[in-house]
Amino acid sequence: MDPLEAVAIVPAGGKGERLGLGAKAFLELGGRTLLEIVTQKLQPRVSRIVVGVPAEDVHRARGLLPASVEIISGGNTRQATVERLVQASKEALVLIHDVTRPFASGALIGRVLEAAAQHGAAVSMVHSQIPVGRTTQGCVAQSLDRNEVMLPQSPQAFQRAVLERAIQNGRRQGRERQTTWQLVEMNGERIAVVEGEETNIKITTAMDWDVARLVVWPRIMNGDRI
Amino acid sequence: MDPLEAVAIVPAGGKGERLGLGAKAFLELGGRTLLEIVTQKLQPRVSRIVVGVPAEDVHRARGLLPASVEIISGGNTRQATVERLVQASKEALVLIHDVTRPFASGALIGRVLEAAAQHGAAVSMVHSQIPVGRTTQGCVAQSLDRNEVMLPQSPQAFQRAVLERAIQNGRRQGRERQTTWQLVEMNGERIAVVEGEETNIKITTAMDWDVARLVVWPRIMNGDRI
Repeated sequence: MDPLEAVAIVPAGGKGERLGLGAKAFLELGGRTLLEIVTQKLQPRVSRIVVGVPAEDVHRARGLLPASVEIISGGNTRQATVERLVQASKEALVLIHDVTRPFASGALIGRVLEAAAQHGAAVSMVHSQIPVGRTTQGCVAQSLDRNEVMLPQSPQAFQRAVLERAIQNGRRQGRERQTTWQLVEMNGERIAVVEGEETNIKITTAMDWDVARLVVWPRIMNGDRI
Repeated sequence: MDPLEAVAIVPAGGKGERLGLGAKAFLELGGRTLLEIVTQKLQPRVSRIVVGVPAEDVHRARGLLPASVEIISGGNTRQATVERLVQASKEALVLIHDVTRPFASGALIGRVLEAAAQHGAAVSMVHSQIPVGRTTQGCVAQSLDRNEVMLPQSPQAFQRAVLERAIQNGRRQGRERQTTWQLVEMNGERIAVVEGEETNIKITTAMDWDVARLVVWPRIMNGDRI
């Protein structure tokens, strides 16, 4: 069987308000923006890449990325941006990767695509080192052992039919979720878990950015992984 | 009402096998071991400190800590070490803090003690930035929104009666849990959540140790917090 054709969509619409250094897509590591790092990492794994940035950043992004990477303006929320990116493509497999996770390896991206091709949906997750608490009204309602829970990363990938069903039903029922795999899970679909990477951190806070610059980036450069 | 007398117990029996640099209690930051940093931080907040280390490390720990800090040899598991430390003390409030979390602030330790005095049990937790997945057999079984879950840190603190009940019932029912608040939660007790600190990281892996040395320690030194 030929591998399914895959598009990588990159929602990069965040303003980086918690970090306070401007839109995170344009933060730089080793002279390249996160947007360049992420799209260059995706390039060999998929046949098409579509990026969604705020309307005012389309020109700036265009100046950084090769012509083969498509750029559209995103929506008001991450979910709205993902919907536009899905509509702007037709490939049978859709990989979603966040510009705020620049350290995902090419191998991980490949494994997530393969798992989605096989199972319909897949997301990269890491094991929790500690039990997690379900909380309500300032108290612990339930402890979940560390082997019961996993902490999701991106990339995540879906067969197009699975993803479009989840988006349509989500819209019909007014669901707005932080990440796309939640919409798919709430639609009753099976999602395979792909073992993620400790270095695949998400850059949200100023401390995350220090960890990215001072710890993960040097580690990955030493290992020649980016 | 007089404040309840409090003991701080510090289980420090781990061999640091995942990190591979020897027992984590003796790792150094700025010329002090984690054991010294943690006990010095606890000192002004409690009337007594008891540390549990492996039998072969008692002498080494004794050489580092002031005579006011009691040192006993721990058990084979964290839970067994905690049980010995609880038995070795009599104070009405018991604060448990891990030597692998050297960056908890004195203010956080104080807030956890106050909450335990008031509610019976309290644990420091931080909000999850992302939804968490309940997983089973390699698939996502349920997504938990980030406002439903929190990620526990230490310190945790308990009124002695609450803690001893949980330990006794846990022993009777053969429960072995990774952290003490889980035993208390499984015993049906109410546990108050105290908002934790982003810098209060747990040192488990080599990457955690880099984050501790290169990111958190300099941040805290700049803020004069340790």
